[in-house]
Amino acid sequence: MAQIHAHRRARAQQQIAESGADAALITSKPNVRYLSGLASSNAAILLPASGPGVLATDSRYAEAAERVCPDLQIVTERQVEPALAMLAAQLGCGTLGFEAQEMTVDRHAALAGLPDGPGLMVPLGHLVESLRMIKDDAEIELLARACAITAEAFAAMLPDIRPDRTERDLAVLLERAMIDLGADGVAFDTIVASGPNGAIPHHSPGDRAFRPGDLITIDCGAQVGGYHADMTRTVALGEPAAWQREIYDLVAAAQMAGIRAAVPGADVDTVDASARDLIAEAGHGDHFGHGLGHGVGLEVHEAPLMGPGRTGKLTDRVPVTVEPGIYLPGKGGVRIEDTLVVRSAAGQAVSEAAGAAEVLTTTTKELLVL
Amino acid sequence: MAQIHAHRRARAQQQIAESGADAALITSKPNVRYLSGLASSNAAILLPASGPGVLATDSRYAEAAERVCPDLQIVTERQVEPALAMLAAQLGCGTLGFEAQEMTVDRHAALAGLPDGPGLMVPLGHLVESLRMIKDDAEIELLARACAITAEAFAAMLPDIRPDRTERDLAVLLERAMIDLGADGVAFDTIVASGPNGAIPHHSPGDRAFRPGDLITIDCGAQVGGYHADMTRTVALGEPAAWQREIYDLVAAAQMAGIRAAVPGADVDTVDASARDLIAEAGHGDHFGHGLGHGVGLEVHEAPLMGPGRTGKLTDRVPVTVEPGIYLPGKGGVRIEDTLVVRSAAGQAVSEAAGAAEVLTTTTKELLVL
Repeated sequence: MAQIHAHRRARAQQQIAESGADAALITSKPNVRYLSGLASSNAAILLPASGPGVLATDSRYAEAAERVCPDLQIVTERQVEPALAMLAAQLGCGTLGFEAQEMTVDRHAALAGLPDGPGLMVPLGHLVESLRMIKDDAEIELLARACAITAEAFAAMLPDIRPDRTERDLAVLLERAMIDLGADGVAFDTIVASGPNGAIPHHSPGDRAFRPGDLITIDCGAQVGGYHADMTRTVALGEPAAWQREIYDLVAAAQMAGIRAAVPGADVDTVDASARDLIAEAGHGDHFGHGLGHGVGLEVHEAPLMGPGRTGKLTDRVPVTVEPGIYLPGKGGVRIEDTLVVRSAAGQAVSEAAGAAEVLTTTTKELLVL
Repeated sequence: MAQIHAHRRARAQQQIAESGADAALITSKPNVRYLSGLASSNAAILLPASGPGVLATDSRYAEAAERVCPDLQIVTERQVEPALAMLAAQLGCGTLGFEAQEMTVDRHAALAGLPDGPGLMVPLGHLVESLRMIKDDAEIELLARACAITAEAFAAMLPDIRPDRTERDLAVLLERAMIDLGADGVAFDTIVASGPNGAIPHHSPGDRAFRPGDLITIDCGAQVGGYHADMTRTVALGEPAAWQREIYDLVAAAQMAGIRAAVPGADVDTVDASARDLIAEAGHGDHFGHGLGHGVGLEVHEAPLMGPGRTGKLTDRVPVTVEPGIYLPGKGGVRIEDTLVVRSAAGQAVSEAAGAAEVLTTTTKELLVL
């Protein structure tokens, strides 16, 4: 693994050199983990445009850092950012790139005000986030494992969808099942939205007991080795009404269209439109108020975002979610979401249903009637 | 509850007026929750020096906001910060205070660059955090409930401390027990550190199975209504060796000295020293490398911090942790921690053991030998 992280750093260093900065101060936790392998609540990396990098962390994580990052110099210091900024200046760094999307105004002012700090601090942009978008094999393997656990936990929880259970009961059962199956944690707070609550995309599971006639939307994911699965299914408790089956079928068709459109080279807003247009043509355009999907990896929401007006293209090895929904206020809703990896067709088994994409969340998308 | 939040906002507004700002943009999530009651991943408050406040959140939380914050004007908008900054300008606000400890350099630049934004943005300091330090009855009640659940879950988990269990098993059991007992979640990732791992203050529970002769340190807490409990106990599996009992007794004595010193008017570094000096006099000064404790509330670590060189005084109704430890590299360690509320003795039942403090985590501090 140390070799993978060294390789990632080398790629980042090339871009730091191209940006004109002498070095970069990496402070975003997922970015630090990506470049070093270290998961720490207090760590930062000084990455010069060339030459070896330095990781600072406090004594709690020093032992882990020595083990995980043998190729980085380790500085054990509680105030990791000033320590690295002063070290940068000592190493002759005149221009230090920093992560303005993560660093607070206060922390920036403290570094900029150091008497022995670097001469100039410049925003680095989303340099590391852009590298993170395309995943290597080790990352896809962790993501696949997180998705497999999610699907298995979902299957294990299905018998508990019955009238004596509440949304909250189900969320707890599902989260436990993921941990039992080997997840390091949950990727985000599980959503269970039943009956009219299904009209609220981010409903917090509450005390509402399930009732026959409910559609129930369950949005959940496991986290493994820092990588986040994200899957949504909507199921029916008892035979669904015609309107319920109608919106289900529409969302399912839109979701499949979105997956098929998610190919290397596709514009993200085109992928969004491929699903959204189907929903809009059926008269439900106003009932699908969020983007079609997002990248997943060390963060549950990361680049690329796929929605109307978003820019950028998909690439081989980019994991994204595809998650259209229809939400009818006061009545209920449907959302169907997979985590998948965008793949170039070459060398891939292309399925008729999913095109070239590798769908990692394999739970059935037939409407389950329980 | 709406009245409590209105009262909190009135106190904040008085200080905003004193700061010279025309209004404040509150963006820290715990601060937004404190002033409005709304728990949202995307919300901010515009609080003028006088007059009614405005809360912005996106459509996912709009319904909850209307219900929870009847006295606030609600703006439904995805980009909450620019929406409120422009509204501030429209309302004639020339100087807008902002939370520089939370706002990133990028978000600040976006607001400062708005053509229709406020004239001047000035750091507000830790204004709301300072108000949050002294808790009202509703807050202490939630904290007490979180601590009671923590103690109950701890007791329920004790029979599972046996040689066929691992650190990770125990952490999962404990976290489940807290949820089962009604916690809204865990306050932080549970620490279970056994045998030599006990020398690592923030050890992540791993696959190590417990062995007779281990000291086992368990640091855990429930979260209820946004309030975080924090408790640590160290137990022995099998009869402890002399050195184990010796450091246990020393930490227990230091912890009690710290609790007794935690009275209104005490300097935080004096409280720290009251425990630390006992440990140092016994020759273990180098084996206690962290501060004595910290405030707890809507964040698990908040003001006041109690450690060497920290400044500030304790006050009536301030909840803090007191958590000395001794860590012997390669051998093991002991930490004992309570969450307690600093109280003025007047009107309180003063216990001989704990002085005036109200200890919320009531699990015994006798060394449990299992």
